Order: sequence, then C-alpha cells, then structure tokens
Amino acid sequence: MKNFTSVYDIDNLQEIIAKTLKIKENPLENPTKGNGKTIGLVFLNSSLRTRLSSQIAAQNLGLNVLTLNAAQEAWNLEFADGTVMNGDTVEHIKDAIEVLNQYCDIIAVRCFAGMKSKEDDVNESILSQFLKHAKVPVISLESATRHPLQSLADCITITENWKENRKPKVVLTWAPHIKPIAQAVGNSFTEWMQQMDVDFVIANPEGYDLDKNFTKDTKVLHNQDEALKDADFIYVKNWSSFEEYAVMPKVDENWMLTNEKLELTNNAKVMHCLPVRRNLELSDEVMDGENSIIYQQAKNRIFSAQAVFSEILDEINSKN
Amino acid sequence: MKNFTSVYDIDNLQEIIAKTLKIKENPLENPTKGNGKTIGLVFLNSSLRTRLSSQIAAQNLGLNVLTLNAAQEAWNLEFADGTVMNGDTVEHIKDAIEVLNQYCDIIAVRCFAGMKSKEDDVNESILSQFLKHAKVPVISLESATRHPLQSLADCITITENWKENRKPKVVLTWAPHIKPIAQAVGNSFTEWMQQMDVDFVIANPEGYDLDKNFTKDTKVLHNQDEALKDADFIYVKNWSSFEEYAVMPKVDENWMLTNEKLELTNNAKVMHCLPVRRNLELSDEVMDGENSIIYQQAKNRIFSAQAVFSEILDEINSKN
Amino acid sequence: MKNFTSVYDIDNLQEIIAKTLKIKENPLENPTKGNGKTIGLVFLNSSLRTRLSSQIAAQNLGLNVLTLNAAQEAWNLEFADGTVMNGDTVEHIKDAIEVLNQYCDIIAVRCFAGMKSKEDDVNESILSQFLKHAKVPVISLESATRHPLQSLADCITITENWKENRKPKVVLTWAPHIKPIAQAVGNSFTEWMQQMDVDFVIANPEGYDLDKNFTKDTKVLHNQDEALKDADFIYVKNWSSFEEYAVMPKVDENWMLTNEKLELTNNAKVMHCLPVRRNLELSDEVMDGENSIIYQQAKNRIFSAQAVFSEILDEINSKN
Repeated sequence: MKNFTSVYDIDNLQEIIAKTLKIKENPLENPTKGNGKTIGLVFLNSSLRTRLSSQIAAQNLGLNVLTLNAAQEAWNLEFADGTVMNGDTVEHIKDAIEVLNQYCDIIAVRCFAGMKSKEDDVNESILSQFLKHAKVPVISLESATRHPLQSLADCITITENWKENRKPKVVLTWAPHIKPIAQAVGNSFTEWMQQMDVDFVIANPEGYDLDKNFTKDTKVLHNQDEALKDADFIYVKNWSSFEEYAVMPKVDENWMLTNEKLELTNNAKVMHCLPVRRNLELSDEVMDGENSIIYQQAKNRIFSAQAVFSEILDEINSKN
Repeated sequence: MKNFTSVYDIDNLQEIIAKTLKIKENPLENPTKGNGKTIGLVFLNSSLRTRLSSQIAAQNLGLNVLTLNAAQEAWNLEFADGTVMNGDTVEHIKDAIEVLNQYCDIIAVRCFAGMKSKEDDVNESILSQFLKHAKVPVISLESATRHPLQSLADCITITENWKENRKPKVVLTWAPHIKPIAQAVGNSFTEWMQQMDVDFVIANPEGYDLDKNFTKDTKVLHNQDEALKDADFIYVKNWSSFEEYAVMPKVDENWMLTNEKLELTNNAKVMHCLPVRRNLELSDEVMDGENSIIYQQAKNRIFSAQAVFSEILDEINSKN
Repeated sequence: MKNFTSVYDIDNLQEIIAKTLKIKENPLENPTKGNGKTIGLVFLNSSLRTRLSSQIAAQNLGLNVLTLNAAQEAWNLEFADGTVMNGDTVEHIKDAIEVLNQYCDIIAVRCFAGMKSKEDDVNESILSQFLKHAKVPVISLESATRHPLQSLADCITITENWKENRKPKVVLTWAPHIKPIAQAVGNSFTEWMQQMDVDFVIANPEGYDLDKNFTKDTKVLHNQDEALKDADFIYVKNWSSFEEYAVMPKVDENWMLTNEKLELTNNAKVMHCLPVRRNLELSDEVMDGENSIIYQQAKNRIFSAQAVFSEILDEINSKN
C-alpha cells in the first residue's frame, strides 16, 4: 500500500478486514514494527476519534507520533498555486508538505471539504497537494470527499456483527442537520459497501443524492421507510446537497432515526461515525438502545488505523 | 482506588502520603508499571501544572498519554441530557465519554465550575457525567468543587515541612481577586486538612464562607489577623461567594498576604496552588521570600499524580 | 554548553558543525542518552519546523518531551516585574519558569519580538526572564533578536554544499514583506557567518540596516545587484527597520529574488529559514528551482537541535 486515501488503495478488502480483526485480537503483537519511524498527524480540522485512535495505533506499533494542529500551532496556509503571497497566508501548503517530507516517514492529514467551491472539493484541492508533493506515503484522516479509515472500521464492525449465512441488507440513510455538512462519509461508506458482500441501499430525500461518481449503480431511494424495510444495518449520516452544492433543500418528512422506524427493520444494528447530534440525526432511545453498535464502531477506528499504518510500514520496509 | 475525585476515594491518608513520599525519592522505580495502558488527559479548561505534572507522572510509570484539549481540538460539547442538538453543540459529552471508554484505560478530566448555575456546579454537572458514563477509572484534574490531586500534593508538602512534635496550625486564608473564582481549591484543601493531624482554621471575609458541606465543623474566622496568629502554614487562595453564588461582596480590609502579616505567624510557610496574581493575592516579597514553599508544592504535583495513577493501575491489574 | 541562546554559547563552531554532521549520518546512535530526562518546549508563538524538529531531536535522544502552547493551553502571562496583577494576566512569567524548573531538566522557549517596544525587544524582555529565573539549561527556539538553532542548521547546510577550496561568498539579502517582521533571523545569521570561514555581505535597502551590535564590521550594501555579484550562497529574509523600529520605509526597487537576479551570482544556492511568502520574498521559480537548498536547510533543523540537546545533556550529566 503506497498511500491510503480510498478503498482503491486496497488490493484485497477481505484480506485487510481479516488482518484488522487479527490486530484487534492482539494490538500489541508488533510493538517495535514502527521503531525509528515517524508519522506526522496533520489536522487542518477538529478531531476526537481520529486524533486519539491514530495516536493509539501508532503507539501500538512503536511509531513516533508528531501531531500538528496546523491552524492553531503553525502558520496560516496558502493553498493556491502561483499566488503572490501578500495577504493573510504565511506559508504555502506545498512548502509545509516539503518540510514534512524531511521530518516524517508517513504523513497523515485531515482536510475537510471547504463547502464553498464544489470544484475545489470534488478535486480534493488540499489532499491532492499532499499526494502531489509528498515524497512519503500519505494517509487520509478524512478529506473533502472520503473518510477511508472510518469506512474500513465500518467494514470491520459489520463483519463482527454478522454471523448469518446470507448477505446482510445495509442501508445508508440521510439524517437531518442544521448546517451544510460534507458528503465525505456518505461517499466513502458507499464505495466500501460496493466492494463488500452486502445488499446495499442508500436512502435520502429528493435533492440530496450523492455524487453519481460515488453511487454508480447503487440503488438510491427517496422514501426512508421503504429503504429501512428488512434492513440488517442502518448507517445514519447527514450530508448537504451535492447537485446544488452545499445547499440544504427543504425536507418535509422527518428523517430522524427513531425506535419506531427501527421497527421497520430486521432488528437492525445502528451505526454512525460520530460526532452525532442527538435527537436531530437520531433519537436518544436509538443512540442509547441495544441496537446501537456506534461505540464499537468508534473502537474499531484504532484497528483500522493500525492495519493501514502496518501495511504502509511493510511497504516502506520492503524498499529498504 | 476505583476513581479519584476527592479525599473520600482514599482508604488511608497517612499511607498514601507515605507512598507518595517514597515515589518522590525514586520516581523511576516502576518505569514499566503502566506499559500497554493508556491514560487520556481531557482538558476542558486551561492548565499548566496539572497538564505537565500529569504527563511526567504517566511517563514515569510507562503509561501511554493521550492529551485532548477538548474545546480547541475536538468538538463543541453538549452537556444537557435529552436536548435536541440543533444549536452550536456538536457532540454530547456522554458520547465523548463512551468513546474515551473505548480508547483509554484511565480517564482524567479537568472540568472547572461554570460559575453560572450554583446548582450545576454543586452537582458537578460535568464530572458527574464522567462518573456515570465512564467504564474505566476516572481521575479529577480539578472539577467544579474539588481539586484533589492538588490537595494530596498539599498534604505531602506540609508533611515534608513539619518536623516538630506537635500539630501544626494550618490557616486557609482568602485573598483578593478581580474575578469570581471557584471554591474548588478551598473546598478541597479543607476536606483534606480535616483528615490530617493538624489544627486547621479558615479565614475569609463576611459573605465568603465556603459551602457548609465542606467546612462542616471547621472553625471559620472573619478576622484575618486573628486567624494568622501563630500559624505554621498559610494557604492563600481566592474564591467568590458561595451563598450569593459567584458574587464578590465588597471587602473593606486588605486581605493580601504581606510580610507584615507574616509577622503575626509562627514564621509560617506560605502555600498557594498557582497560578497566583502577584501583589493582589500576595505580595512579591512573600512570593519571592524564604517562607514560600509554593514551587515545592508545584513540584509535588508530579508525585501526587504518580501515586494516584499507580494506585489506579494496581486496581486495574488486580482485576486482570 | 550551559545555555544555548546565541553563537556565543558555542566554544568551537567547527567542532559543533562536525558533530552535527556526524549526528546526521546516524541520528539514532545515542537513543538512550536522554532517558529519564525531560525537555519542556514552551511556545509563546507559532511554530512548524522548530516544533517538529525539536520533538524529533528529543525522541532521537530518548528525552521525554513536554510541549506547551503557553497562550492557548495555559494561562495569560504577565511579563512586567512588580506589577499589581489586577488585569488580564493570570500568571507571572517568573512563576511559570520556576514551575518549569521543577518539571524539566531543560527548558526550550520560543519568544518572538513583540515589535512594539524597541527597548523590550533589544533587551530580550522575555528570554532574559528565562535566563534569570531558570535553574536548568535554557535553549532559545527563537527569541526577540536571535534564532540560533536556525543559524546552526544554516551553517551545516552551507558546509554540506561547499566543496571548493576557497571561501564561499555568502549574501544575506533583504526581501519584501507586507508586515513588520523581526530582525532575529538576520541578526543571528550575521553573527554565525562572522564566525564561519566565508566572505559575508549583507544587502538591504536604505533604512533597513540591522542593529550595529550584530553587523559590527560586516559589509552592508544598499544595492542588491552589486551584493549578489558572484555570490555562492544567498540567504533571503525580510526584516523591518531597526533604527525607526518596526517601521517599513518605502523601497523603490524590487528586492524579490528571481531567476534573473540569480544570473548575477555564481550559480548561487538559495536559502530561507521558512515560512516564506512566495512571489513576494522570492519567486516560485527560485523556490522550486534547482538552486534552492531550502528544504535541506529545514531538514538540518533536526540535527542542529539534536546536537545542542546532546551538548546540554553532556553538561547535565557531567554534574551528576
């Protein structure tokens, strides 16, 4: 694995899932694998789970960790090429990346969608600079359009919770929010489910269809009740409109996941990447109920990170 | 020791003081005791001493440390149960705690009094959520009403500085300030002194009496000079009114500790938990004088933290 | 080496350059040298390179690292002696330093010029407090008037890039900026070049002469083209006026370093301490061109820090 920014960096999904579950059984099996190597965790945005789980994963492998809250601790970054930097920005992102090249063996970066320019976000205006200028492996800690470490953890969590001898039905359902939120988690979960042996459906209101480049031939329903029917797993997540970018078209029905809606399902397990807005995206009763596997999902973030760091270390070591 | 949020989590105060002094003699005696375990240090408020001393204590025990500046690095937290989260808050504290449960073997948290609602503060509205939802031991790094790691360090410091064959007289004296400050340090020091073999007196202006639930039958004087007479230790600290919550009733006398006032005492040692406002709470001459044991007190924060982390690790290990 | 705040803390420059280059060959040669010792990295200002390279250097030596973003994570600091602290400041710098004395074996601090009072900056109003109150070695991570770890890295970089049997011509050239910037890097580079076996010239517009206490008898030209002639190394850096302190006198010529100007030189290598404002201080073509050794310079920050930490540890160990 050269970089890790999407499911397409994985050769064999079943194999990495198996490896990750093995790591979960014994996270301290390779405590010196990363010794003498340094991973830089660069946060351009807030983070709780990703921040902590990545640190734990790195520690489990004996990697040195450098955490940089870029905005607060370093310099205001310029992202546009060719600019005369006579404004508020103090350091060009490409220079920051070139310096990280000198200091780190692996660069991991969180760079959310700006939600202002559809073109910038679709083109991954920030992550693409890391991929262009980094001379060491790059790991996405969530970028404008994807959240692959989350998606790998999601696959692990579904695998752990499915013992039946048939494909589970997995529904990604849109949920209400008060602010325009990126499509990254929805896109990413979709891509990974397309490669899993599941029956996958997306439910969202009219006007909220995800980018066709991600959904491809996945079935998209605009009726939540219909989608939830017989579901084995429900993934709850808000996103804003892709077509009319970052806009929030009015939704008449109540899409918040409640126990009443859960009754439509096959006693479905409920998932969410967190943070979640309680009683807006889903009700307290669902969040705190026994169908929720949301905290287990959060825990699996450690192991998805550790599996990816481990694969990347294998690649680095194979070159030495 | 299951949790550590007050003196009531200590079985035997003399024993833990002895253990702490032993740790101080050789802080690196158990450098692998915490190996493979992770402590999360969660700061909802500013911290210098607690932040650094806790990290050193953890390192001395071989514990992995995750530090989270919750407000700046993670998400804006919701504290109210049952709320429809359609405002500024992004993650409910109980979900953050449940995630910390997945990532940490010990959770340590700093959550100051909000100084807005007496009821919230008295009921430890934040710490209580940690105690309710945490599935791992919880350590207070100062909460709304107590600062127990400070108080343990204070007990150590007094013990180190008292060699006579009689009870020392210890005075907790109120000091001026310009803002309404919590009663946590005062309450906490009071509770611990009540269990120490000392003659303990509190001095504060009228209107500044601490919560009776903490002071109990401790003598409270409203005349500073009278209280300071023959004191062996003086603990200087501001707090705002408890009765008329967070208000600062006018004080006519000057309660700032000066060398002149020190002359009333038995050449008393002077203590303060820091940060201190010089020439407001106490004078430069006292702070920089030879009676001050304030920096020694700060140093002892390392060992009080290490003693508590060590006790908690014993408890964790006894269950495995 | 007792402290490290300028070139005058170095006994033998050639010797430390040789040691640093040796460390660069094998940074992990002494991985336990710092074991059981703690370095506190105190940032009163932003930092990318210094923050990360210092952490790596410390890790390479097995030092424990405590990083403190003083403004955001701790308390608002008071710097004036004797003040009645009844305003916005919560902790006096000298008390913070005395606490750091208790917690750290080495204190490293970044404290930029305030650019408001020439007297405060010239007198190193903050660093001087560290030097006065610290009881452990103090390392400057850039102060009001100097940036010595950068300068040592600069010396390494020049040494690595010069194989000819004659003195190289090194030109420190002023560059445009939009804000008044400190003279620290310029001063510091000047001091170190004065001790290197190089032919050193400073070029800056009229009104931008550096403090004579730093430039001494170094040649200062006000004509950039004349200075660049036959240069082997060009160090690009902005600073504001020293004489008319922190003012930016109007400059008619364009001092931005371009490829056209590079043609005046002896195919000079280009240096900059970063962060750099592209197309203002120097052009994209220079920054991304083959004459730039700027990222190599950034990498050498690791080894200059490691060499200094190592010398300081030798001093500490020699006392034990």
